[in-house]
Amino acid sequence: MGSFLFPRTPSGRASLIPSPPWHYSGEMITVEYRTHPDLVSELIPEGATLDDDDPGAVALIWADWQSTGDDFSELVDPVRSQYKECFAVIRCRWEGETWSRCPYIWVDKDFALVRGYHQGYPKKLGDIWMTRPVTVGRAGPRLEEGGVFGATLSAAGRRIANARIELTAPAEGPGFVNAHPMLHNRFWPAIESDGSASMDELVTMRGYDGEVADVWAADAQIELFESPSEELARLEPLEVIGGYYHRVGVSWKGGTTLRRDQGGESVG
Amino acid sequence: MGSFLFPRTPSGRASLIPSPPWHYSGEMITVEYRTHPDLVSELIPEGATLDDDDPGAVALIWADWQSTGDDFSELVDPVRSQYKECFAVIRCRWEGETWSRCPYIWVDKDFALVRGYHQGYPKKLGDIWMTRPVTVGRAGPRLEEGGVFGATLSAAGRRIANARIELTAPAEGPGFVNAHPMLHNRFWPAIESDGSASMDELVTMRGYDGEVADVWAADAQIELFESPSEELARLEPLEVIGGYYHRVGVSWKGGTTLRRDQGGESVG
Amino acid sequence: MGSFLFPRTPSGRASLIPSPPWHYSGEMITVEYRTHPDLVSELIPEGATLDDDDPGAVALIWADWQSTGDDFSELVDPVRSQYKECFAVIRCRWEGETWSRCPYIWVDKDFALVRGYHQGYPKKLGDIWMTRPVTVGRAGPRLEEGGVFGATLSAAGRRIANARIELTAPAEGPGFVNAHPMLHNRFWPAIESDGSASMDELVTMRGYDGEVADVWAADAQIELFESPSEELARLEPLEVIGGYYHRVGVSWKGGTTLRRDQGGESVG
Amino acid sequence: MGSFLFPRTPSGRASLIPSPPWHYSGEMITVEYRTHPDLVSELIPEGATLDDDDPGAVALIWADWQSTGDDFSELVDPVRSQYKECFAVIRCRWEGETWSRCPYIWVDKDFALVRGYHQGYPKKLGDIWMTRPVTVGRAGPRLEEGGVFGATLSAAGRRIANARIELTAPAEGPGFVNAHPMLHNRFWPAIESDGSASMDELVTMRGYDGEVADVWAADAQIELFESPSEELARLEPLEVIGGYYHRVGVSWKGGTTLRRDQGGESVG
Repeated sequence: MGSFLFPRTPSGRASLIPSPPWHYSGEMITVEYRTHPDLVSELIPEGATLDDDDPGAVALIWADWQSTGDDFSELVDPVRSQYKECFAVIRCRWEGETWSRCPYIWVDKDFALVRGYHQGYPKKLGDIWMTRPVTVGRAGPRLEEGGVFGATLSAAGRRIANARIELTAPAEGPGFVNAHPMLHNRFWPAIESDGSASMDELVTMRGYDGEVADVWAADAQIELFESPSEELARLEPLEVIGGYYHRVGVSWKGGTTLRRDQGGESVG
Repeated sequence: MGSFLFPRTPSGRASLIPSPPWHYSGEMITVEYRTHPDLVSELIPEGATLDDDDPGAVALIWADWQSTGDDFSELVDPVRSQYKECFAVIRCRWEGETWSRCPYIWVDKDFALVRGYHQGYPKKLGDIWMTRPVTVGRAGPRLEEGGVFGATLSAAGRRIANARIELTAPAEGPGFVNAHPMLHNRFWPAIESDGSASMDELVTMRGYDGEVADVWAADAQIELFESPSEELARLEPLEVIGGYYHRVGVSWKGGTTLRRDQGGESVG
Repeated sequence: MGSFLFPRTPSGRASLIPSPPWHYSGEMITVEYRTHPDLVSELIPEGATLDDDDPGAVALIWADWQSTGDDFSELVDPVRSQYKECFAVIRCRWEGETWSRCPYIWVDKDFALVRGYHQGYPKKLGDIWMTRPVTVGRAGPRLEEGGVFGATLSAAGRRIANARIELTAPAEGPGFVNAHPMLHNRFWPAIESDGSASMDELVTMRGYDGEVADVWAADAQIELFESPSEELARLEPLEVIGGYYHRVGVSWKGGTTLRRDQGGESVG
Repeated sequence: MGSFLFPRTPSGRASLIPSPPWHYSGEMITVEYRTHPDLVSELIPEGATLDDDDPGAVALIWADWQSTGDDFSELVDPVRSQYKECFAVIRCRWEGETWSRCPYIWVDKDFALVRGYHQGYPKKLGDIWMTRPVTVGRAGPRLEEGGVFGATLSAAGRRIANARIELTAPAEGPGFVNAHPMLHNRFWPAIESDGSASMDELVTMRGYDGEVADVWAADAQIELFESPSEELARLEPLEVIGGYYHRVGVSWKGGTTLRRDQGGESVG
């Protein structure tokens, strides 16, 4: 069958996502902060270690995206192209290199959810909102010093994160935590549901043709809230490192499997 | 009580909307087309007549807004600031002047719904999507010749309008149909539900401090679809006049009651 | 025009709600509790007084409804028939009688929102969830002693109320707070937005052909949470009176205007 | 890590779904109809054949569920327990036995989506609505002869299926199409996105402790509608076999992998 993903049909038209490459254009609000390094340590892959340099650094990032497959058809039916997400990023060392890793992420569309599963992002559904910059009128900040933006995340009807940034000056780049190739697990338990895995991979990926524009540094505040079904608040903010606004364009066509445990083996 | 609107409390904090002024910044996609003038005639106020000049002209407009009260607090909790809408506009003559009028409109937030009721817009909830222009990456049009945008409207789980525009050249303004002061009815039946009205007003309103930017003319296509609970498709597109993209900022602090039928009188 | 409500058209088909009578069938979870009487006092109409008997009593009620106009067409397109709501009820004395009154209410559909405005309910949109009783399987309580139900309310991405009830015994009726004719305000400011009102009414209403079934008393717990745009939590629970589950069917065809301030008069 | 599924953490609390067993209680509306057998043939696994007996039979089933893990905690936070789904079922022969198979399915919560992926259901998000039977009031059918129910499915803002059933008589069981063990594929492409698969399994599963109640046969009507991103309408209804309403309770604790292609092998 010609489908990249299920539902798999001869034509492939019903597939939740088309074959890569996939293209993305969006804007992001980033807050970098420090938590207890032990809490970061809980979330890195087996065999990885904390980065010596700022081991408790976390980025919480909101993004408002348009995305599309390579025939660009979703762009004119924007319910299938636009989505928002909020995700945490931490860093670790593995095999002599530094990696970024996303332990928690929420999106608001199904195509973004499963595209994330393909890339090793542990996505859930959430409600994500970000202030947008404006160029006319009074209902929004300008991309200029003093521009104030809010960003919020809710899941299962509970607010679980609030951020607020105030732009200070143009910046070279939007922080250091989400700056490395991603080190992700792709995991699916066997249907036997007995502790064995059908898929248990360590993978890496990164986009291509990346473009960044309108990068601003910002003063930042962040609040995380408890939920019975979430653990984001466990990554307690001890000290804000900084905030950023930027626009980004990027394409993606595949990643690399670094380590694969064969189906049927037990998982820890 | 200090509330502008219900729920009314001493502090006014719970009010669905704060006191005006209200400020708006957003972007709009407009398709102007001609329908049968008789169908426009059905939707204009008692006492008004069709405009002699292009009497069957209709604008179907999509807008993606940020809005805020005068303390600007909603802007940093953007779930309470951002909303999208799609609305039809027709024109009529009344007392020697030309007016714009909105017979149908859908929004996706409660504060926008009731703010609309205050202004005489007959709002319903809908799902509204519009392609956004981008400046980086491949997932979206640029504001330049050839940029293609889609806009869609669904209500009660049914697609009821699709539009597609392709930018051709910068333009002076975004069309002529939504260019006049609005002539709206504000209507509420008496709780007796016996055909009498508690509020039956003809009102006008228009914003202030309007700013328009990035106006582009476009080739346009539009499709309207039937629904058992909607009548938008009755305004059948016979001929497209043109399409537009533009950004707009505007503030609003009140309108004028043109004609008021006292509570208790019967309505036609 | 033949429409009961806007959008008003010759056929009336697009009207947000059909002409009454309206019919409702649903199930309800009720928690009655006591708050500071002064907080109830803030929310009763001008000229009304607290009830001497249990003046701080509040009911917080969740309901899961099917509703329909008199041609019953919504019932087979259930997106236009089903909705959930959560509302607070208090009591007061006015002109020698005892009344129930709803100061806060949230629903999840537009037709329920505006139908509420017609009846004087100060409705907002919210996300409302209630456990349902089951008769087969293990995923739900039975209508029997020990059956446990949860009920939650969120608005603007924030959880604002949680309730939990555990059935104890069949009961005669579902509490005393929501047991009187409603005393509601119907209020709309003039479009001039200058403090004058276009509609400012004190109304009463109550359903007909009411049927109640499966009434159970319950032990109850309730939690209210703060939100910057809500004041429900101000009605602080000091002591739970009791909880109830019941099913209800009712029809509605109109109410009575008790007092009407003419359009144009100032409001307090 | 102790999580059944991602996000994987030491406590397992954030996992999208808890470890099985999972328990379900719900109600279902079923329409069975015949389509062209060739269209069924397109959707069965490699190596399977059509059933000789009524090869073009399809069931389209709507379900309104409560579900929970084995600690029953979701039941009192019903946003995490309740969901609706609509799914198509076909049949095939494989290795001498008859199987049911779900080629298309939509749900409205993330936990139901990924729980389905674990079981081999190719789930997407959709908006699903079903009339509920009532016992009081006029806003709903009774479980009795002549009771009329509607069921609808929308995805990406487009209505893609409508059904209507009218109860005729109590029945032994709710049809024959969804009556066999499921024969599902579990499939995930390798992150290399080069046509190889990381997981490509043929699995079977079925619940335990099933209970069925209130089974009614019904006259049925069904309509399917086109969408650019769906292929359900390709299973064109040629002749309705029958309709059913029933309640069901069931638990699930695992399935069986029938065939597994090792990671890295190419997929057809």
